Amino acid sequence: MNRRTTLGAALAAPALLAARPALAQPAAAPAPGPAPGPAQAPGFYRFRVGEIVVTTVYDGFVRRNDIRTQLGINATPDEIQAVLDANGLPATGIQNPYIVTFLQTPRGVVALDAGTGAGQLGPGTGLMPQNMAAAGIRPEDVTLVCVSHFHGDHITGLTTAENQPFFPNAEIAVPAREWAWFSDEANAARSPQQQRGTFPNTQRRFGPLRARMRVFEGEPEVAPGIRAIATPGHTPGHTAYHIASGNEQMFYTADASSRPDIFLRQLGWWSMFDFDGQMAIETRRRLFDRIAAERALMTAYHFTFPGAGRVVRDGNAFRFVPVEWSSAV
Amino acid sequence: MNRRTTLGAALAAPALLAARPALAQPAAAPAPGPAPGPAQAPGFYRFRVGEIVVTTVYDGFVRRNDIRTQLGINATPDEIQAVLDANGLPATGIQNPYIVTFLQTPRGVVALDAGTGAGQLGPGTGLMPQNMAAAGIRPEDVTLVCVSHFHGDHITGLTTAENQPFFPNAEIAVPAREWAWFSDEANAARSPQQQRGTFPNTQRRFGPLRARMRVFEGEPEVAPGIRAIATPGHTPGHTAYHIASGNEQMFYTADASSRPDIFLRQLGWWSMFDFDGQMAIETRRRLFDRIAAERALMTAYHFTFPGAGRVVRDGNAFRFVPVEWSSAV
Repeated sequence: MNRRTTLGAALAAPALLAARPALAQPAAAPAPGPAPGPAQAPGFYRFRVGEIVVTTVYDGFVRRNDIRTQLGINATPDEIQAVLDANGLPATGIQNPYIVTFLQTPRGVVALDAGTGAGQLGPGTGLMPQNMAAAGIRPEDVTLVCVSHFHGDHITGLTTAENQPFFPNAEIAVPAREWAWFSDEANAARSPQQQRGTFPNTQRRFGPLRARMRVFEGEPEVAPGIRAIATPGHTPGHTAYHIASGNEQMFYTADASSRPDIFLRQLGWWSMFDFDGQMAIETRRRLFDRIAAERALMTAYHFTFPGAGRVVRDGNAFRFVPVEWSSAV
Repeated sequence: MNRRTTLGAALAAPALLAARPALAQPAAAPAPGPAPGPAQAPGFYRFRVGEIVVTTVYDGFVRRNDIRTQLGINATPDEIQAVLDANGLPATGIQNPYIVTFLQTPRGVVALDAGTGAGQLGPGTGLMPQNMAAAGIRPEDVTLVCVSHFHGDHITGLTTAENQPFFPNAEIAVPAREWAWFSDEANAARSPQQQRGTFPNTQRRFGPLRARMRVFEGEPEVAPGIRAIATPGHTPGHTAYHIASGNEQMFYTADASSRPDIFLRQLGWWSMFDFDGQMAIETRRRLFDRIAAERALMTAYHFTFPGAGRVVRDGNAFRFVPVEWSSAV
């Protein structure tokens, strides 16, 4: 077992965390040498929005080896280096996390996007199933998946490596503009190179789910208190969601912004993962303007775990204020 | 059982998290009404500094009902309100967390401060023992406790409600200046009102531990790779610690700064918990100047959990950059 396998096993079976003395060092005879690989805490975080319990679930990460060529692709290398320095970030070796937001509503559990699928996108990814288990959320509890867009890290988890539905009881809500673009192979040649893998993966993931799909137009309430927000640019049909319960609210911003220390500060930058960079920056400003004005809670897919917080205006840009972790749900 | 009791029980027995379907909602017959109180994730976070595994352990929180009267006591109400607004903070109802840093070194486990003691400081506090258990750290594994200062939230956990040592095998390293001041009742009358409770608690907590105490002068290496840093002001003998392993390093800043969104931004402010406000602000600037210059990792006692990150210079002040949570330890 390598370290990742060990970690995965430990996360999948939290009882082991307490049972085995991972850090045990006899006081009388300290063990020499480096520490063994102890387990990280399970990756989930809970808070409330009205009568909804929100749980963000960590699905792993991919390492970005050269942030400069992948982020802020319309910025100069010097501009990028200045932002990295201001945030104490290395130009190499940052992590891009994946975070799936679950909503326990009075009508069932809703998943906002579907994760990367256990092991399907390579080392470090696919931790959602074991972190769901640690959080006590079963795939069969999920009655609705609201999809933000069709990039592989958001939809691959809809089906297993064997093409079976991961959420056996869930309806799948899908934005019509996203479906129209990526379900038509004729659009592949009209898409940026970076987006072309999305076409076959769309066929593969939604193929077994066609009978459960609900393709929606515009910005409907897809379930009571959960409303779609058209936020195109990152992809043609990219969709955020607004969650309301009682007099509280929350936004799920999906990929309207990637890491906030860069893309909420540099509002004119876009990334190589944006389908239409100019549209992405207009959408980003509009969405986060609204979130800041309403002082609302939000979750995102690629912010540092737990991926939840608020947004404040700061000069001509925004600043993300992470939620204050608390044991009190 | 109230919610806190339920939460505590769940955290103490993580096996329950996976075993009980906390969010289970049958797809066919959704349960109406608000969600039951599901458990938060166990409060610990791990990363490496050289061959040391660092684990920050969440010990609960106290709610501060009026931040304006307790923080920045040398600032005007308007100045304080401006800072709260800039950070999206309410003037009422913020949480002040407690976080104990553990170091698994090749020579045994070291605790940096001792927590609030299970239940001894009231509701919401005293979660360190159950979060240690979730992390696989046993009290008997701890061979050394390095005390930063003698405020009740840092030393009460040294002994149980029954005055027994919580860490049965640990030596207790104590700064001589702190010991000299708070072990002499004659100093109580010369101390700010807010600090006077520290005198009897010093007697109570260290009484059962006198045979295990090592009172150190100056800035010695208290254990291989762990060096004291005199950082007076918050209390007369407040002490930070520098941790080195291989070519990596980390600082434990204890209470040299309370919450960073206020006290690393407003370098001229001090809090009602500072013994000598002017000395506290001089110490704070000097310590965080060093941490920023060295781009070093740090942990603190009252920063938002997981309480670990880096510090960058930002204008005339500093900005805290939280560690990026990762499943990979």
